[in-house]
Amino acid sequence: MVETGVESEQNQRVFRDRLVNAGHLIPSGVKGVYGHGAAFESVVQHLDAYVTRVGADQNAEVIRFPPILSRAAYERTDHLETMPHLLGSIHSFVGEEPEYHELVRMHEAHEDWSRAFARTDLVLVPAVCYPLYPTASGTLPPGGRVVDLMAFAFRHEPSDDPARMQMFRQREYVRLGTSEQAIAHRDEWLRRGETLLKNLGLDVTRTVANDPFFGRGGRVLVASQREQALKYELVIPVASAEKPTAIVSCNYHLDHFGHTFGIKTADGKDAHTACIGFGLERITLALFKTHGFDPSRWPAEVRGVLQL
Amino acid sequence: MVETGVESEQNQRVFRDRLVNAGHLIPSGVKGVYGHGAAFESVVQHLDAYVTRVGADQNAEVIRFPPILSRAAYERTDHLETMPHLLGSIHSFVGEEPEYHELVRMHEAHEDWSRAFARTDLVLVPAVCYPLYPTASGTLPPGGRVVDLMAFAFRHEPSDDPARMQMFRQREYVRLGTSEQAIAHRDEWLRRGETLLKNLGLDVTRTVANDPFFGRGGRVLVASQREQALKYELVIPVASAEKPTAIVSCNYHLDHFGHTFGIKTADGKDAHTACIGFGLERITLALFKTHGFDPSRWPAEVRGVLQL
Repeated sequence: MVETGVESEQNQRVFRDRLVNAGHLIPSGVKGVYGHGAAFESVVQHLDAYVTRVGADQNAEVIRFPPILSRAAYERTDHLETMPHLLGSIHSFVGEEPEYHELVRMHEAHEDWSRAFARTDLVLVPAVCYPLYPTASGTLPPGGRVVDLMAFAFRHEPSDDPARMQMFRQREYVRLGTSEQAIAHRDEWLRRGETLLKNLGLDVTRTVANDPFFGRGGRVLVASQREQALKYELVIPVASAEKPTAIVSCNYHLDHFGHTFGIKTADGKDAHTACIGFGLERITLALFKTHGFDPSRWPAEVRGVLQL
Repeated sequence: MVETGVESEQNQRVFRDRLVNAGHLIPSGVKGVYGHGAAFESVVQHLDAYVTRVGADQNAEVIRFPPILSRAAYERTDHLETMPHLLGSIHSFVGEEPEYHELVRMHEAHEDWSRAFARTDLVLVPAVCYPLYPTASGTLPPGGRVVDLMAFAFRHEPSDDPARMQMFRQREYVRLGTSEQAIAHRDEWLRRGETLLKNLGLDVTRTVANDPFFGRGGRVLVASQREQALKYELVIPVASAEKPTAIVSCNYHLDHFGHTFGIKTADGKDAHTACIGFGLERITLALFKTHGFDPSRWPAEVRGVLQL
């Protein structure tokens, strides 16, 4: 039986409500924004540690960024042209006493007081590896770099689908080097990601995918990205059977970021980059969907792998 | 010798540059926004785990929020009246094709494209316990609640002081209950916080403190908050000897949040709340300042306490 769009959305809301009733998600009043209960967060932390064990041989540099990015660095990327609808721009109040009194008046009159706010030097991180590239300008060491990241990303896409949160954590391994090194990283981590998830009892499917580019021009970008097979996802049904959820994403950026931020290989060429991102909340939701809402009753093998 | 204001700021920049050279902080191009290197992040994680051990007897509910808060919930607080200059408001692009083309044109013309963005339903979390209170509306269980939080908070206060980051993590224990319960929590955790930090070799001083309220009206709030001794801080010199840094903050909110969000005790009164917040980056910086930049060479006692 094929699930219709309406049924798919209904299934998402049913799954969300079950997660709320179980205490795994705590509603905030805004779609796609939740607190996480103790069991949910424990799974996220154990998943993160499991990915670390799987990647231990990479000897990756560990870097942790807060979920904010320099607006000037953001403006050097093409994100505003390609996915502006997902960006979160941070605005603040920088006025003095007269502007303050007007701000309070607007608030009391239920007007849009945010119009009194001005842009800051910051935007929210749109993808977890974005803050890395501006700090990598210059010549890479021989052999390039492998970097271990974990951070929150923000995407403005309010949804009833519990797997589509507006702010979520990704654990990433990023490769910066030659095109051969970037492609080898992508291919190796696609295989490792599949094995990692299958060891958790998650029967994922590998698919060629595309970013959610904006508007009419976006269709051309989608076709090009898919034709070159630059983005792969590992997907599995979570809230909806017909619309499986991407829980791992593996991207080859060609020399896109290398060119933009002046990242060079030892022989002076623009560096190529690739990354794998493990969606920590989405994998946790897939585990709840597959093995039930009580981690203490998950299969012994899965608990063993996660060291739960 | 008394340090002047200019000397104090110079000391902050010198300390920041030393942290950058050691790889502990990675500059982003924006003041008060850094990536953290592996050793820095390892100390943060071990600190977090140490606080968990010290608080194990509290049997606190663990809840983790992403660093975003419902704008509607925010508007019910008095933060916009008292500290609007610190808030980060999140704005997004919600236009269609015509607005998109105007957006791209503004970007290419180096105009302020953020003016094409509209407020979303979200603001950045101004203090780590803010997302909790709107979810606690209704009647508390007998005995009230103790909640364990850890999250990022945002404050728009760009600074050269490495201890004044725009986004940082706080680990908190929050009490919701009667005034007696809230005051007992505050007093008990002030003592525990002092002991916890002294066990790390951090010789902190307890001071009555105040929030950085805005403008002329703020002076009245400062005087009132200090007179009632509602806020205590544990401070220690980090970048500047003359301006010690608050690394722990302990606050009694009276029935402020209880009244605003309809949180009631079992006998129907507005709940009182109190919280202790451990500034994870600031404590880490105090450890680097006190014991040196290489955690493997810290005193054996400190390494033992942190299980480093």
